[in-house]
Amino acid sequence: MPVNYATPSPEALYPVDGIRLGLAEAGIRKLDRRDLTLLALDPGCAVAGVFTQNRFCAAPVLLCRRNLDAGGEIRALVINTGIANAGTGEPGLQAAQDTCEAVSRFLGVESAQVLPFSTGVILEPLPVDRLIAGLPRCVDDLKSDNWHAAAHGIMTTDTVAKAASRRVEINGKTVTVTGISKGAGMIRPNMATMLGFVATDAGIAESLLRQLVREAADESFNCITVDGDTSTNDSFILIATGKSGAYFADDAAPGYAVLREAVTGVALELAQAIIRDGEGATKFITLAIEGGKDRAECKRVGYAIGHSPLVKTAFFASDPNLGRILAAIGYADVTGLDVDGIRVWLGSAGEEVLVAEKGARAASYREEDGARIMLAAEITVRVDLGRGKARGTVYSCDFSYDYVKINADYRS
Amino acid sequence: MPVNYATPSPEALYPVDGIRLGLAEAGIRKLDRRDLTLLALDPGCAVAGVFTQNRFCAAPVLLCRRNLDAGGEIRALVINTGIANAGTGEPGLQAAQDTCEAVSRFLGVESAQVLPFSTGVILEPLPVDRLIAGLPRCVDDLKSDNWHAAAHGIMTTDTVAKAASRRVEINGKTVTVTGISKGAGMIRPNMATMLGFVATDAGIAESLLRQLVREAADESFNCITVDGDTSTNDSFILIATGKSGAYFADDAAPGYAVLREAVTGVALELAQAIIRDGEGATKFITLAIEGGKDRAECKRVGYAIGHSPLVKTAFFASDPNLGRILAAIGYADVTGLDVDGIRVWLGSAGEEVLVAEKGARAASYREEDGARIMLAAEITVRVDLGRGKARGTVYSCDFSYDYVKINADYRS
Repeated sequence: MPVNYATPSPEALYPVDGIRLGLAEAGIRKLDRRDLTLLALDPGCAVAGVFTQNRFCAAPVLLCRRNLDAGGEIRALVINTGIANAGTGEPGLQAAQDTCEAVSRFLGVESAQVLPFSTGVILEPLPVDRLIAGLPRCVDDLKSDNWHAAAHGIMTTDTVAKAASRRVEINGKTVTVTGISKGAGMIRPNMATMLGFVATDAGIAESLLRQLVREAADESFNCITVDGDTSTNDSFILIATGKSGAYFADDAAPGYAVLREAVTGVALELAQAIIRDGEGATKFITLAIEGGKDRAECKRVGYAIGHSPLVKTAFFASDPNLGRILAAIGYADVTGLDVDGIRVWLGSAGEEVLVAEKGARAASYREEDGARIMLAAEITVRVDLGRGKARGTVYSCDFSYDYVKINADYRS
Repeated sequence: MPVNYATPSPEALYPVDGIRLGLAEAGIRKLDRRDLTLLALDPGCAVAGVFTQNRFCAAPVLLCRRNLDAGGEIRALVINTGIANAGTGEPGLQAAQDTCEAVSRFLGVESAQVLPFSTGVILEPLPVDRLIAGLPRCVDDLKSDNWHAAAHGIMTTDTVAKAASRRVEINGKTVTVTGISKGAGMIRPNMATMLGFVATDAGIAESLLRQLVREAADESFNCITVDGDTSTNDSFILIATGKSGAYFADDAAPGYAVLREAVTGVALELAQAIIRDGEGATKFITLAIEGGKDRAECKRVGYAIGHSPLVKTAFFASDPNLGRILAAIGYADVTGLDVDGIRVWLGSAGEEVLVAEKGARAASYREEDGARIMLAAEITVRVDLGRGKARGTVYSCDFSYDYVKINADYRS
């Protein structure tokens, strides 16, 4: 059960003019599920992406990078779930290439105009024949209002499909931003998430789009952790079709701030949905770090707390075991950190309690206040490092029996 | 149940001439357990230690560092379990100081000659009155063959007391090395372990002792991880009483290599016992990394694998989910790592199977071989990074339902 999250209804996900989506049951790893998703892009779309920093990055990630770097117009995205096609060496790269070539034949485009994505089990070969056999049914299914189905199509251990959509008015034009994401475990993205796809019908210049996809990732998918494991397949793609007529040449263009907020907001909703649906998660935890010398050290502190199995199990138990939080701050690798200058608050639903200051429990702190807040499903730990003006936020979840169960059973 | 570990019998723990140990029930946090341990050292002992790098280090750690730096002769160690006296600010420091002063009165030494140690819950005040009230009974109990009782006295969530002892012949003299340790969670020592005390009746020059304690820690307590959490109280102390008559002025002294091996061996046994008794552990995992450019990058890879909740849950499930191991290697922050040059073996009980090479599953690998090895209680993952001559080893354990249970229930 995700923490305060439900998939938006199909009607709440606005189509993005210029993009059609189609799904099929290809039997990649399991029967009776639509595990293959195709996105067909009209001519004239701009596409940019950020990808995992994991050295064992998956074959489709290598091919995505290559095809984006080639600079040609991207016309299609193909996404399979079930098998990650990672740790598959040269045959894996060939399988990804074969996938792109098959898509290019069915859509009448070049294979370098196709971006492939895979998610699922690592180190197993991709059944590329079954994947290709499923493609004609994806093509037959192509339609613009298929975002809801696509959100389901890309799931692995997710218990809920993740999607978000907004419409904003910019310079008299209605601009749509719609996206989907997947991921529940192996989540500590580094420059991108498991899989996230956001599209807008705004027109965005290539260089601005590349800047926006990095900034949006940095404020969303790069702020979350379930288990600290950076996946081999993390990819976040931003597509601008230009069909709305609104065009942005650079970040000084009128109305760009509104577009940026809409794109980043959708990305943040999708990223937070991944945490709300984190494997075994029963709580959504916001680690709001402030008073740092720079954003990087704030995020290091946030990740230290957010990764600590001791902190995460205490949240699961609704136990205000604040010492574990202090210990995590203490080993977060902040040079010259003075613990006497740190203050820590625990908060939920508008209430906030000072729990620690001057290197110790706050004199005003009462255990029953901490215990009451820890019972909530949404909890914020606010930390003031007391050494600067920078801030950084990390979103995390707790660590439950079900995390162990899900990950001990995943392949069986 | 620890993995292949049982506390040595009292007779197997050789007394160290020059050291007497006494225990008492002080009621620090629980009744009916001997939670206070005193070590009284004869005049002429040399003592050195390494301590946690956590910025939120505990009050007794601060005082230990201060008293060791002062350079006076150390005459006593006092250890309480139940309360860590960490995150307790100025009052905590005063409590540790009061403890040292009480010990100094009872033993007729200076308070700066006393080293205090605490372990247990963080952020709770140390009940120093109850602690001091227990000291006279510790003094009454002082005897040289109390190591077995002391190993039990310092436990917290440990399910088994940890101790090791050796006798070696050096230059015609019998030299004894005996030690105890505790720790099962919040274990990813950085320069020291939770608590480890090793004593020898060899005489060791002060500067050599300081070198030896660092080297021994680096090969033992600094090679282990249960959950990646560096404790606030980690301390590892080495005592040399000199009573055996064997003396070592520097590392070129005849027979020093034998002494070094005995001390490091005892420390390694104690460190490994912590992993074997890791919270919820059902498996003991050795991560043997070789072919690195330096030892630091080998240990980074070992820790990345050893910390990954996904790898640890797969070990718990005896699931040869090798992709998770490759993913952890891939995000271990090794600059310029070429995944095509990496080879990975899975081994147990003399059997070893090549599981991955050239960025993919090895052609010769059969799933049933991996599955058979994963069923063992002791498993070695050997990784050749293929880029140098350096090696590094990390010891870890799996991640089970019981880890969550223990840490969700710890304070209740």
